[in-house]
Amino acid sequence: MTKPKVLFVGDLDETLEEYLRFKEHFECIHYKLTTREELIDKFHSEFNDIVAIYGAWLGFHLLGGMKGELIDHLPDTLRVIAICSVGHEQYDHEKLAARGIQLYNTPSLGAEDVGDTVLWHILESFRFFKRFETRAHSTGHVIEARRQLQTKGYDHLQGKLGVETDQWLKNAFPFGEYAGGQLARSPFNKTCGIIGLGRIGQCIAKRVQALGMRVVYTQRNENKDSSYTYEPELEELCKQSDVLVISCPGNDSTRNLVSRDKIDLLPPGCKVINVGRGFVIDESYAIERLQQGKIAWIGLDVYTHEPAIDPRLLNRCDVSLTPHMASSTKENFDATARYALANIWSVVVDAVEGRSKVV
Amino acid sequence: MTKPKVLFVGDLDETLEEYLRFKEHFECIHYKLTTREELIDKFHSEFNDIVAIYGAWLGFHLLGGMKGELIDHLPDTLRVIAICSVGHEQYDHEKLAARGIQLYNTPSLGAEDVGDTVLWHILESFRFFKRFETRAHSTGHVIEARRQLQTKGYDHLQGKLGVETDQWLKNAFPFGEYAGGQLARSPFNKTCGIIGLGRIGQCIAKRVQALGMRVVYTQRNENKDSSYTYEPELEELCKQSDVLVISCPGNDSTRNLVSRDKIDLLPPGCKVINVGRGFVIDESYAIERLQQGKIAWIGLDVYTHEPAIDPRLLNRCDVSLTPHMASSTKENFDATARYALANIWSVVVDAVEGRSKVV
Repeated sequence: MTKPKVLFVGDLDETLEEYLRFKEHFECIHYKLTTREELIDKFHSEFNDIVAIYGAWLGFHLLGGMKGELIDHLPDTLRVIAICSVGHEQYDHEKLAARGIQLYNTPSLGAEDVGDTVLWHILESFRFFKRFETRAHSTGHVIEARRQLQTKGYDHLQGKLGVETDQWLKNAFPFGEYAGGQLARSPFNKTCGIIGLGRIGQCIAKRVQALGMRVVYTQRNENKDSSYTYEPELEELCKQSDVLVISCPGNDSTRNLVSRDKIDLLPPGCKVINVGRGFVIDESYAIERLQQGKIAWIGLDVYTHEPAIDPRLLNRCDVSLTPHMASSTKENFDATARYALANIWSVVVDAVEGRSKVV
Repeated sequence: MTKPKVLFVGDLDETLEEYLRFKEHFECIHYKLTTREELIDKFHSEFNDIVAIYGAWLGFHLLGGMKGELIDHLPDTLRVIAICSVGHEQYDHEKLAARGIQLYNTPSLGAEDVGDTVLWHILESFRFFKRFETRAHSTGHVIEARRQLQTKGYDHLQGKLGVETDQWLKNAFPFGEYAGGQLARSPFNKTCGIIGLGRIGQCIAKRVQALGMRVVYTQRNENKDSSYTYEPELEELCKQSDVLVISCPGNDSTRNLVSRDKIDLLPPGCKVINVGRGFVIDESYAIERLQQGKIAWIGLDVYTHEPAIDPRLLNRCDVSLTPHMASSTKENFDATARYALANIWSVVVDAVEGRSKVV
């Protein structure tokens, strides 16, 4: 008996135990996308009897997504598309449903990893570890490293460390609280305002609470199962936040949610972290406020003009930038692969519905 | 009536409310140490009627500490020395007691701050944020930043990122789990072994538990009030630790506690963090094991040859170095100043014993 065929678009770790077991039951075809024409051609030849498609993170993005006539050319044998990402905008739900093809996504399995990323941004924003680390490496001397940062006159416009010293600073023992014209602060007893207390927001809340921070959150409805302080009004949340964390999903209702007027409500010295979607905040205005010294720190994993990063953010000392990798760990990469494989297995082998069905 | 005189050796923030109140009752003399001779001379002239000494972090360290004949020259009016640091090795207890001078230190008020520093080291060791951040700044492009790190062949001897790529990596979408030949990992469900569950150790434990880590600790006696797993044997703790954190005090009983044979028990890929004292671990051997690729990461705030940092640690990609500033925040600097001021007030004004008396 021949094995049913599965088309893999994108990568997974082929040494995974679950994949090896999968391969015993399926013929796995790994294909690298080239052109739309070639793919259509293959749907009528080599791939004309596939029963499932495994779509890794990028999916069919390079060909503009699985939409329009591409769906017309899918073979009649195809029963299921299982993807590794949460987002599934690149798949045309209606047309897939009309062809009787099931679509499964993967829930946010990397929420803990996103929490870690936010925590790192927050720690940088209070303690300026990067500044100290750079000088520990360059001087090889703990006191000299601290002394070099014992200066005044931070340049907010350029985001550059101050180099002036006055007599007091020159004479003082470098304790390490000075970080080039800014003072290292403790997050303890400060307030962290979180926009969106979903899986990810809860992972963030748990972590900052362990730092001794007060957690306040806002979202459409109160989460009655949580003990964190609910604040129905975003305006009120902004006024209270020493750190504002954006961890809500990006969609039409959250576009420009943290607008100019909300940003103006943030207390002086507030730090802003975004791991939701770039367009949830008026990023450009936030950068202006950073340059004016009103916002003290911007930490981003997502960007308005992604994949590009606003050049005004680059090489500043008061921003932390991670390249959209908040959930990127080997563990998460493998967990999503296992999840997608299991969905194909459920539909094709066990003839039951999988988990996290989209259509 | 003239105000009693207090000699300040070292700095504090002179705008502190508590200091301003203090100044209403005391004549505060701020003195910068020069030579032993000058200080002795002043004890017999300008300072001959001081009632208290406020000793900031460095204290009398530059003159070899408050020891020997220096104590003989202290004026008879002196009743109390209050210092900001925990350590008080530079003060000769016996001689001070013989002169009837009380000595107060300050407990570790910065334990939460130390916890934050350890957390930062741990997050770096699992996720390599610095590597990604550097490339986000240099490329201004999230995908390109991740792609540059999608390489193989990490060089353990030099601590340099791998630059080789194979076909698989070249074709793969840069998800962000590759960080120059090493894989970003999740701390979730891993084990953090803590040596010393004092105030600082507890602050560390609380934080790593919030990451979803399993906490095991060792120290002389079990802490019955804690819910963390106690492991009486350091050897057993080492065997289990994905991260080993040293947070015990440095003294004769902890010197070389994490010796060569203990380091050999750490599982492959273990990360080692030290915020205790440099001499608690065989630092030199730990570096050798890092160069051999047996230890995956070394994160240090304290160093064996402090203030110098072992040159082999510098400019490696698999170490995180903070220049002995684990507790250095403005909040802690001020809190210790308040504490020392309050001790002087208790003894001199209220004529009662202060807090945290050493002799």
